[in-house]
Amino acid sequence: MNAHQTLKIGIVGLGRLGRRHAENLLQHVPGATLVAACSPLESELTWAKQTLGISNLYLDYEALLAHEGLDAVFLVTPTSMHPQQIIQALRAGKHVFCEKPLSLDLDDCRRVNAEATLHPHLNVMIGFVRRFDASYQDAYKKIQSGSIGQPFMVYSQTCDQFDPEGFFVNFAPTSGGIFLDCSVHDIDLARWMLGNPKPVRVYASGTIAIHQGLEACGDVDNGVAICEFENGRIATFYASRTMPHGHETVTEVTGTAGRLTIGRNPRQHRVEIADATGIRNECTPTFFDRFEDAFLSEATYFVNAIRKQEPLSLTLDDATEATRIGIAMRESLVSKLPVML
Amino acid sequence: MNAHQTLKIGIVGLGRLGRRHAENLLQHVPGATLVAACSPLESELTWAKQTLGISNLYLDYEALLAHEGLDAVFLVTPTSMHPQQIIQALRAGKHVFCEKPLSLDLDDCRRVNAEATLHPHLNVMIGFVRRFDASYQDAYKKIQSGSIGQPFMVYSQTCDQFDPEGFFVNFAPTSGGIFLDCSVHDIDLARWMLGNPKPVRVYASGTIAIHQGLEACGDVDNGVAICEFENGRIATFYASRTMPHGHETVTEVTGTAGRLTIGRNPRQHRVEIADATGIRNECTPTFFDRFEDAFLSEATYFVNAIRKQEPLSLTLDDATEATRIGIAMRESLVSKLPVML
Amino acid sequence: MNAHQTLKIGIVGLGRLGRRHAENLLQHVPGATLVAACSPLESELTWAKQTLGISNLYLDYEALLAHEGLDAVFLVTPTSMHPQQIIQALRAGKHVFCEKPLSLDLDDCRRVNAEATLHPHLNVMIGFVRRFDASYQDAYKKIQSGSIGQPFMVYSQTCDQFDPEGFFVNFAPTSGGIFLDCSVHDIDLARWMLGNPKPVRVYASGTIAIHQGLEACGDVDNGVAICEFENGRIATFYASRTMPHGHETVTEVTGTAGRLTIGRNPRQHRVEIADATGIRNECTPTFFDRFEDAFLSEATYFVNAIRKQEPLSLTLDDATEATRIGIAMRESLVSKLPVML
Amino acid sequence: MNAHQTLKIGIVGLGRLGRRHAENLLQHVPGATLVAACSPLESELTWAKQTLGISNLYLDYEALLAHEGLDAVFLVTPTSMHPQQIIQALRAGKHVFCEKPLSLDLDDCRRVNAEATLHPHLNVMIGFVRRFDASYQDAYKKIQSGSIGQPFMVYSQTCDQFDPEGFFVNFAPTSGGIFLDCSVHDIDLARWMLGNPKPVRVYASGTIAIHQGLEACGDVDNGVAICEFENGRIATFYASRTMPHGHETVTEVTGTAGRLTIGRNPRQHRVEIADATGIRNECTPTFFDRFEDAFLSEATYFVNAIRKQEPLSLTLDDATEATRIGIAMRESLVSKLPVML
Repeated sequence: MNAHQTLKIGIVGLGRLGRRHAENLLQHVPGATLVAACSPLESELTWAKQTLGISNLYLDYEALLAHEGLDAVFLVTPTSMHPQQIIQALRAGKHVFCEKPLSLDLDDCRRVNAEATLHPHLNVMIGFVRRFDASYQDAYKKIQSGSIGQPFMVYSQTCDQFDPEGFFVNFAPTSGGIFLDCSVHDIDLARWMLGNPKPVRVYASGTIAIHQGLEACGDVDNGVAICEFENGRIATFYASRTMPHGHETVTEVTGTAGRLTIGRNPRQHRVEIADATGIRNECTPTFFDRFEDAFLSEATYFVNAIRKQEPLSLTLDDATEATRIGIAMRESLVSKLPVML
Repeated sequence: MNAHQTLKIGIVGLGRLGRRHAENLLQHVPGATLVAACSPLESELTWAKQTLGISNLYLDYEALLAHEGLDAVFLVTPTSMHPQQIIQALRAGKHVFCEKPLSLDLDDCRRVNAEATLHPHLNVMIGFVRRFDASYQDAYKKIQSGSIGQPFMVYSQTCDQFDPEGFFVNFAPTSGGIFLDCSVHDIDLARWMLGNPKPVRVYASGTIAIHQGLEACGDVDNGVAICEFENGRIATFYASRTMPHGHETVTEVTGTAGRLTIGRNPRQHRVEIADATGIRNECTPTFFDRFEDAFLSEATYFVNAIRKQEPLSLTLDDATEATRIGIAMRESLVSKLPVML
Repeated sequence: MNAHQTLKIGIVGLGRLGRRHAENLLQHVPGATLVAACSPLESELTWAKQTLGISNLYLDYEALLAHEGLDAVFLVTPTSMHPQQIIQALRAGKHVFCEKPLSLDLDDCRRVNAEATLHPHLNVMIGFVRRFDASYQDAYKKIQSGSIGQPFMVYSQTCDQFDPEGFFVNFAPTSGGIFLDCSVHDIDLARWMLGNPKPVRVYASGTIAIHQGLEACGDVDNGVAICEFENGRIATFYASRTMPHGHETVTEVTGTAGRLTIGRNPRQHRVEIADATGIRNECTPTFFDRFEDAFLSEATYFVNAIRKQEPLSLTLDDATEATRIGIAMRESLVSKLPVML
Repeated sequence: MNAHQTLKIGIVGLGRLGRRHAENLLQHVPGATLVAACSPLESELTWAKQTLGISNLYLDYEALLAHEGLDAVFLVTPTSMHPQQIIQALRAGKHVFCEKPLSLDLDDCRRVNAEATLHPHLNVMIGFVRRFDASYQDAYKKIQSGSIGQPFMVYSQTCDQFDPEGFFVNFAPTSGGIFLDCSVHDIDLARWMLGNPKPVRVYASGTIAIHQGLEACGDVDNGVAICEFENGRIATFYASRTMPHGHETVTEVTGTAGRLTIGRNPRQHRVEIADATGIRNECTPTFFDRFEDAFLSEATYFVNAIRKQEPLSLTLDDATEATRIGIAMRESLVSKLPVML
């Protein structure tokens, strides 16, 4: 692979997000092209053929990996399949992009990590997409340039709009719970913004405000947590499934000389409405509306790193650490005690 | 009068605004006290007695002026009475505070001005209350300190909330029209912020969006105007009676190195509401809610200037000039031609 | 005492805040007047005499309480003196307004509470001033009217502007620490907004970002805490002494149908500045600039309740409970374990 | 041409904006592809070859038009060439997308219009890109759905960031002046939002705040104008070349039941900075940063309309009318009199 070659990519999983990645890879990511698709669902393969014009279609993952000339895979599959699929891809000599989270199980994370170290020439990246959002990038650069002094405190929330149909409740048993499903993004952002300090202790709490169906699997629809890091760095988290107004991911980074707030009041458009209720703006309804552009930046970054043979700034260690902290939060939620890390 | 004496004030007119001034003078303005009240309406005098405890009550203005020891009057009377009442007060040796506008007639303005010059030891101030608002004061100081470079462009609007009962339509025949009733404030602010440049030319237009009753007296419920001043200074104005969301007075001053915007999005409280309609704030419903504090600052300034025997920064010339420009706008609205000044 | 009598008040302590209360009581609170002042400092009494014209001046608190006709006292004294001074005033038959916090010691709180129950005709109120801020009042009314459904989650922060001289560090040994000094306000607001649920468990953490001098007394300059209440209500807190931009007290109340945010981006004026750095507003530098009006509303409320012989909505139980939770936070900060309540 | 064919497009002119269009057409516009490029500058053709891989390169416009199978041209050429190039393309049977403005001369506009009516099967669209911005689209839909009642008043501004090098001054002699160069966009937006009312009268004024070099060609760096339409519709315009903070295009549409404001405070990112200067956001520096996405939407719309054989919502009449009003503003600026339309 070199900077003048086009990266040949196979996509695995063509749900909503998978389709998005597929379209990006086919048309919008310079230096890459989508050459094959894999899904156990015929309907998804039919979509790939008819809408994207992809003719190399696989029901079987192994068969995809054997596709002639394939350079990399994009895994947009259920979380439980991530570890094994990544390991298989690595053993087949493919670069791997995998949607977050790496896994809900720490041993699995470590197993993947161990395999990856055996393939130092292959890149594996877990899709913590927010890092590639233009606003988060801007904030990170400002922090790196010293504009807020020494960052020491993060508040980060992932708040989803209330879904009256409670669709997500069905997935709660396998989602890992609100901290591993939602806050894992915030944990990754906090570590990134704070310079990857080692976590020391986690405390979490939560409540079911609306979705009583979560009780059966020990999950909550609103959770808060505090994570203490070494050197007095602290991060506070909030995750919610019950926001009335839209998806609002906010990260606030406080330093000794300034504070940056990313994403507060997630305006859907640059339109302000004045009427009898006051002055308002509408908000992005879903994470997808908020981070749509970031999915493209993320894929572009991944492809570029491979073509230029540059190491990734977002590593498997990062993904493992976010999972480790998220698992500790889930434990604290149950035990009602701090969990040491 | 000196800085250690208490200024004895008589109030004339006890409508809504008059009552406000009366309460301020009685309790909240240091160095002043309210000693007498005058109104042709028994009900208003009864209010003064029962609510304020004022016992010197006059149906007749001449009688008030003859009140022993009276230092100053506050005129909160119909505009048509302003010129004569000011002149009478001056001849009786009283300082005068008079609600805006000075008059709708330029000759009257000049007559008052001429009389005032005969009484240089007496202060006469027309209540352009917005100059005393903390935000306008802050902006003015910033401009004076050079923070936006040389100011050359003003946009100023006075927009009232739509009143479904159209109460103001009844007063339209005597209000002088939208420019003399509303924009006269903006004109005064523009002159102040731009350093009192001489006006050269005015052009105005307007429309009736809702209140058809205005047509009979040649008025409009939405009006716009451009005023060109010497040295390339320009001000643009907008006045409206039909805002859906509240009273929104905005003034934008653009200079060669920066821009200040005063009053945009007039939040009633420091409360933000997130609900299914988006994220919003409620707005100040009336000019009174917006400028409540400024009425007190204004009275305090007036009283202080008298006690310290300092000249007023807001002069009768200012009031006359604002009226002159406002009249030109009204003429232009009718003639559909620019009016030279 | 009845609604037509004027409440005669004595002020105790004439530091910055005491002077403010004194001026309000003398001039601006209807139905009340300031008749006496007490301070151990001659300079403060001199100020009261010269600036306010108060002639009944006392070095001794007992002597003030014996002042003929005194109805109530305003205690603006060091926290350690609050309990004893309140008890003395109650025994002397006086209503008491006392600045927050009631005490740093829970037994003292209970002792005061017990004494107060012996004097049911006397009102005692601790100055949780934020409850009387117009914005907090507006939010509370909205919640009461059901506009956000059932409130279940509060985030509340008290963040002070960084003081390069670190003046507050001198007071840290007696302030009770950041949670009892700052967060006690937020705790009170959270309880109020959530309908006074019983607290169950508290966890806190903190860090010294700048003011190393705090280490000696076990305090921090940035602290976070989670308080779990019964019925799944949760509040998260943040207190900071190191904000770069001003004093920013924010309270966010999330309910099942909406969210209210009070105080975010504490604009000092209604002025927006556009220059080469972007578009910005200046912020209120201190809590005093932010809550100036609330001090007057608070005193007015207290006086009215006495004159109308109405029970206070803000009780000694409220003050005790806020203290109890604040103490638990301090304990958790030290023990690094949750504290049960 | 039908909805299943790919539109073959040739680009003419490869300056900054031309390159942008070229990249969009090559990769991002579904149903279209870039097959040829034309420029009198060798360097631009070299760029097309090396960066885009386009091999059909023409120094001569006639030769491009003769390119086998070409369906449409994108004209990103100097304004003075637009009319003739459009006419030539139409006569060669090509659809035409042309950057705004159509022309600075009304007769030319009409000549193009007349030619276009001879080719009803060919689409000609002038690039009023703002119509395709997601926020303007959102506002337009809201207005169409009646959410602000009957729209009657527009304020629209195009304000560019101050360029200390005054680069644009060099182009002032051929730009048509500030109203035809900048406000022409606002005029088009006002007409669109107000339902294409007939203009009646225009009045304009302006000043040179900084760029004295404009005086030679009768232009200004800050201009304001009022345009009255039939049925009492009014639009006010502001154009500036001297903003300190960035490019700020704002359009405010006021109706009888609400007001929409598009683009106020043009945040570059979703990042808020709190530091010693207050709370601020950075602004989009240029129109390109603000409308980057709209260029793609615009091209996509144009291509779709051709493939689906649908009439364009943005017509040559619209472009002609905007030019006609802009010319009237320029005349009024000089004559200092209203210009009837």
